[in-house]
Amino acid sequence: MTTFDIPTTSRAAVLTEHGAPLELREVPVPQELEAGALLVRIEAATVCGSDLHLWDGSLAGSQALDLPVIPGHEMVGSIIAFGDGAERDTFGAPLKLGDRICFTHASCGQCDHCRFDNQPTLCTNRQYYMFTNCSRPPYLVGGFSEYVYVFPNSGRVRVPDEVPTSWASAASCALRTVVHSFERIGKLNPWDTVVIQGAGPLGLFATALADHLGAGRIVTIGAPDDRLAIAKQYGATDVVSVFEHPEPDDRVAAVRSILDGAGAEVVFEFSGARTAFTEGLGMIKEGGRYMVTGQIDGPGKEVPVRPGFITRQQLTIMGTWSGHIAEYRKALHFMKIARDTYDFGALVPNRYALEDATEALSRMRAQEDIKPVITPHGTGGS
Amino acid sequence: MTTFDIPTTSRAAVLTEHGAPLELREVPVPQELEAGALLVRIEAATVCGSDLHLWDGSLAGSQALDLPVIPGHEMVGSIIAFGDGAERDTFGAPLKLGDRICFTHASCGQCDHCRFDNQPTLCTNRQYYMFTNCSRPPYLVGGFSEYVYVFPNSGRVRVPDEVPTSWASAASCALRTVVHSFERIGKLNPWDTVVIQGAGPLGLFATALADHLGAGRIVTIGAPDDRLAIAKQYGATDVVSVFEHPEPDDRVAAVRSILDGAGAEVVFEFSGARTAFTEGLGMIKEGGRYMVTGQIDGPGKEVPVRPGFITRQQLTIMGTWSGHIAEYRKALHFMKIARDTYDFGALVPNRYALEDATEALSRMRAQEDIKPVITPHGTGGS
Amino acid sequence: MTTFDIPTTSRAAVLTEHGAPLELREVPVPQELEAGALLVRIEAATVCGSDLHLWDGSLAGSQALDLPVIPGHEMVGSIIAFGDGAERDTFGAPLKLGDRICFTHASCGQCDHCRFDNQPTLCTNRQYYMFTNCSRPPYLVGGFSEYVYVFPNSGRVRVPDEVPTSWASAASCALRTVVHSFERIGKLNPWDTVVIQGAGPLGLFATALADHLGAGRIVTIGAPDDRLAIAKQYGATDVVSVFEHPEPDDRVAAVRSILDGAGAEVVFEFSGARTAFTEGLGMIKEGGRYMVTGQIDGPGKEVPVRPGFITRQQLTIMGTWSGHIAEYRKALHFMKIARDTYDFGALVPNRYALEDATEALSRMRAQEDIKPVITPHGTGGS
Amino acid sequence: MTTFDIPTTSRAAVLTEHGAPLELREVPVPQELEAGALLVRIEAATVCGSDLHLWDGSLAGSQALDLPVIPGHEMVGSIIAFGDGAERDTFGAPLKLGDRICFTHASCGQCDHCRFDNQPTLCTNRQYYMFTNCSRPPYLVGGFSEYVYVFPNSGRVRVPDEVPTSWASAASCALRTVVHSFERIGKLNPWDTVVIQGAGPLGLFATALADHLGAGRIVTIGAPDDRLAIAKQYGATDVVSVFEHPEPDDRVAAVRSILDGAGAEVVFEFSGARTAFTEGLGMIKEGGRYMVTGQIDGPGKEVPVRPGFITRQQLTIMGTWSGHIAEYRKALHFMKIARDTYDFGALVPNRYALEDATEALSRMRAQEDIKPVITPHGTGGS
Repeated sequence: MTTFDIPTTSRAAVLTEHGAPLELREVPVPQELEAGALLVRIEAATVCGSDLHLWDGSLAGSQALDLPVIPGHEMVGSIIAFGDGAERDTFGAPLKLGDRICFTHASCGQCDHCRFDNQPTLCTNRQYYMFTNCSRPPYLVGGFSEYVYVFPNSGRVRVPDEVPTSWASAASCALRTVVHSFERIGKLNPWDTVVIQGAGPLGLFATALADHLGAGRIVTIGAPDDRLAIAKQYGATDVVSVFEHPEPDDRVAAVRSILDGAGAEVVFEFSGARTAFTEGLGMIKEGGRYMVTGQIDGPGKEVPVRPGFITRQQLTIMGTWSGHIAEYRKALHFMKIARDTYDFGALVPNRYALEDATEALSRMRAQEDIKPVITPHGTGGS
Repeated sequence: MTTFDIPTTSRAAVLTEHGAPLELREVPVPQELEAGALLVRIEAATVCGSDLHLWDGSLAGSQALDLPVIPGHEMVGSIIAFGDGAERDTFGAPLKLGDRICFTHASCGQCDHCRFDNQPTLCTNRQYYMFTNCSRPPYLVGGFSEYVYVFPNSGRVRVPDEVPTSWASAASCALRTVVHSFERIGKLNPWDTVVIQGAGPLGLFATALADHLGAGRIVTIGAPDDRLAIAKQYGATDVVSVFEHPEPDDRVAAVRSILDGAGAEVVFEFSGARTAFTEGLGMIKEGGRYMVTGQIDGPGKEVPVRPGFITRQQLTIMGTWSGHIAEYRKALHFMKIARDTYDFGALVPNRYALEDATEALSRMRAQEDIKPVITPHGTGGS
Repeated sequence: MTTFDIPTTSRAAVLTEHGAPLELREVPVPQELEAGALLVRIEAATVCGSDLHLWDGSLAGSQALDLPVIPGHEMVGSIIAFGDGAERDTFGAPLKLGDRICFTHASCGQCDHCRFDNQPTLCTNRQYYMFTNCSRPPYLVGGFSEYVYVFPNSGRVRVPDEVPTSWASAASCALRTVVHSFERIGKLNPWDTVVIQGAGPLGLFATALADHLGAGRIVTIGAPDDRLAIAKQYGATDVVSVFEHPEPDDRVAAVRSILDGAGAEVVFEFSGARTAFTEGLGMIKEGGRYMVTGQIDGPGKEVPVRPGFITRQQLTIMGTWSGHIAEYRKALHFMKIARDTYDFGALVPNRYALEDATEALSRMRAQEDIKPVITPHGTGGS
Repeated sequence: MTTFDIPTTSRAAVLTEHGAPLELREVPVPQELEAGALLVRIEAATVCGSDLHLWDGSLAGSQALDLPVIPGHEMVGSIIAFGDGAERDTFGAPLKLGDRICFTHASCGQCDHCRFDNQPTLCTNRQYYMFTNCSRPPYLVGGFSEYVYVFPNSGRVRVPDEVPTSWASAASCALRTVVHSFERIGKLNPWDTVVIQGAGPLGLFATALADHLGAGRIVTIGAPDDRLAIAKQYGATDVVSVFEHPEPDDRVAAVRSILDGAGAEVVFEFSGARTAFTEGLGMIKEGGRYMVTGQIDGPGKEVPVRPGFITRQQLTIMGTWSGHIAEYRKALHFMKIARDTYDFGALVPNRYALEDATEALSRMRAQEDIKPVITPHGTGGS
């Protein structure tokens, strides 16, 4: 096991009760690593919408939680210790102490989804960061912490030198999920209109990616105005404000009006809003495609849908869940080649110390910060 | 215009009031045909589920109806007169007087769906048989009639000699819709389980086609038992009776039990039942595909769906509407090559005279006949 | 038949003997149009590489020629007369006298390629402009002419107002062929390297389109330097000069060197060079895709290929032939939305009168003009 | 390390000089297994065409060989010892001592082909059985041996109980390669004609699989007659004898004659014949697909091809190399579900002791045995 000095404890912001402020705790650092594991120093942990749902307990339906946990699953760490055989990333690139990496939840690598149908995010044995109790080894299983233990089965990829740390952190959940959604939906064409529901980090990344891929027209729906301004910088040809159009029907009408009454060839749902699915179906062209990525499952989440509409309109509706290591690499590569075209720094403007993690969550919930960056070792760096 | 003698009137069973018995009327026969049109003698008109919905008025929501109309859109006609330039079928095969043809609703050939995105069944200018008022020229626009006028824009294909007339009639809506659904859903594999919701004509055709295409396991759901027996003859490895399992949850449990708790890689909805969509989602494997073909759209047809389930399970859900002329040809070709393997005569056992059309509808609604065959010129023939 | 005044004759540059100067002749103008036909005034006819092959006789192998013919199949015409029922373009848009259109060779609309497998450019009954003897009606079947007769079966699309005439002309063969090739090859990704063989009009359009679609890296191979300069303006990240690397092996080595020894995920052949196919296979990554568009078939065109290389490298090799009306529309749409990003005027800098058509061919053959524009009615306009 | 008793030596038939008889040697058995490795007792090793090429040295061009080696890479072993962590197969199924498995060449799991583009057979670091010198540890790296060492990176799958050992052995190279080829070529349709070049094990497996998948018409080309008889039993609608049609052009004409002059929508090359590629191109329909699987690469293997033919005919030509563990599982699953329809025992009728391995090779080369089965521990069993 090659290693820098391993500290004995790590400060972490711990969720002990839904809705309550996170507690700053000293958590033990594992001194021995399993084969294939890594120990990393967290350089940046960006906050994801799922962290908010974790905090307020609304994720509970789909995912049984065993508190306490350390929130945070979107992060960049620099390597301080290698388990046996971990000196290469998933794609065979050599890793050395200090290298920055992004890493995935840990799919088992043995189930049908991992091995047979090539949908590893559906792995039913997946170990998740931030959903795993932190009072048992290996303890450091969430990003709001000075150090994190990288599971042996976690895919990992070296961050390209050209990509700033805070950007790479945002790529490690938000952008890789967007990339995965785009992979699944298939080709966008210069003669396609793409509607993007949501102007949070996913919706904005999606706007940039749709622009990069040459979509003919891009309509981004969201709020507040500063996010819509970013959408336009990222390539949206039109935006629809949910503040100006507070009712779902108004938003459908606004999109249809922009498109001269027609629907869009492709709609992406990245908003997480309860009404979004019904709205999206109202914005789609006959024969069109709809990717539903932002929705959370659970009891009571039903909305009314007419199945005959799917039949009659000959729609294709798909879902995308999470992302696997190839998507992380693709996301980082996109950032690398498009870094001069899209200012992704606009998504991650503010830094927070670990002790301010609760404030980061609160400000994100209040839409005062688009994607807070927690820097457990101080607020310097990119 | 080459022609046999054109009669002056045609007897037809006419729908004048929803739910009331059809009226036998003498309808004028157009003596002049537009370029591209045909006049055909109906050899067989099979009854489709849509005819039942037309009769009882439940189609009204999705399709404004202007009574009176002649029901029937699933039929085989033999040519008795050609409009100019109509001496070849859509694929260039020569047609002569007396030849049997199947023909489509008339897509316009000029809209984006017809010309640009290759989804002609979505044509927004489509002329439909059975939905068009029969008191105006060209009058003969439904299959429950001695003669039918084939629109210039209707695709038409010669029926292969090996395919019996009643089978070909059933191919001209039921099977071509099944073929279209299979085309859209993509490849079935020997290691896939396919669930088919519905044991009516569509579900049974789908069972045979899934078997022909080598699906690993086929579970067909429906009733009554004689239809499930046909399903087994057509290749279903398992069947689930809706009589034995009257509750949707029971049916989901029954399928899951057959599959050792797993879901199916592919589910097809051909039942038209109100609960089917929710059930189907319960039978699908994570990452699986769901083709929704049997559902009718309209006000009040909403069912509760959790969009987050689509996201979390990474599903692909598609709809299929109707079929175009290539699907007719494919359907007839499948019948031709598989005619010794699957006894499709089991789907069309009974013949009805025009004056018994109402009885045919009633018996189909009561599930006493699976697909009645109306033979306006007498009950002989195949 | 709605019409402007129809002239009685049209001046045309006629090919009467391979390799000889074109003859300027007065050709009769049909005074009656078939249903569906159009008569157009040629606003611009751009020269295509196939015109050169037509001229020098090297096309003869694949296409029996019956001289005299009027060269030119890449053109924009403005409508001066409508045959019956021709007042809409293929997509249903209304056409009026004076409107500019692009139009296709005339596929029959009845064969399997037209109707069944959706590959209408393979139609075996296709009527071609420039390959049809011009001494018989309808005479005006090539673009180097004041007027052209548009066949009833020719797809036609209105040119968007935003697209200059000379650009649209170049779209009507070169760009639509490129678009078709990109459609067939499938999705390009931000993490893919694309090699484009050829820096003529097709290779340069392909460079722009690959850039628009977000390809990660684009290497364009060709000459002379002014074309490579355009390639870089259009988005090539690297260029390889065939003047600096006159040997095929050198070019393979140059590309491999740029790619650090690796091959490209996708290679497009748009050069027409005899050695190009072998070279392209040397530039491709294992598992990669190769689109072969620029090659001409015929006796003696064999090159040595190792089939086992295709097996061992698990390649996908495809060909693309011509384009159909949907590709014309897509090409024009791409020009419309990308007109401020790519200066396509750089491909069509020079205008020629009809009497200078031979000079246009000669200068193109000598690579002194990239794509000459023949303007039969004077050199004004766009 | 769980284990049966590990013998100290294994008898093996060793290739020491190309073309010479194999030598029966005692080879050391590794007493310690790496983590993830297995030691298996060979229950059956079937002979593959590649074993013949290995023997005669014709593989040398594509694969540098370091003699001595143990031929054989198509085999079934029963587990006699587990390395650490090897108690499950690649898909997570538990393995116990005595279980029968098939296993792959060992792809590295870290390169782009393994991890990024999902084409692991292209892995450039792959460890191959039968190509690895057997005088160094782990010695037992070929199937013509009593025992074989399964590399840690070799995918492995438990053989279903319903599949006889000799069939499973044939699945572990021949059928999995066929399955892989069918996966890559895409969907076959009931209205497609499929031509299969070759009536050896691959061609015959392909005939059965095309039949199972419902291809409309299947033409198998090969010899001798007993193999063509098996082809007909497996579903070939037509066969073409290479004995009756010894010239390539004759075979093309014979296929075209069967198809009334048309070509086939899909052609598969499984013959390995030098002329096959040119022939196959002559049998394909415009716009068709060609899968080239049976060809060996190397110096001097060039054949003349007209690239313009690929362009003009708008073909898709693909190669397939080997197979990965998912294909092994699919192959075995297909055998399991189709075992009552296709008598795969017809492909593996004869058993040979290890000392008769040279005779097995000779008889296969002379086409006196279609696929010899070497049973190192005696000729009993299935």
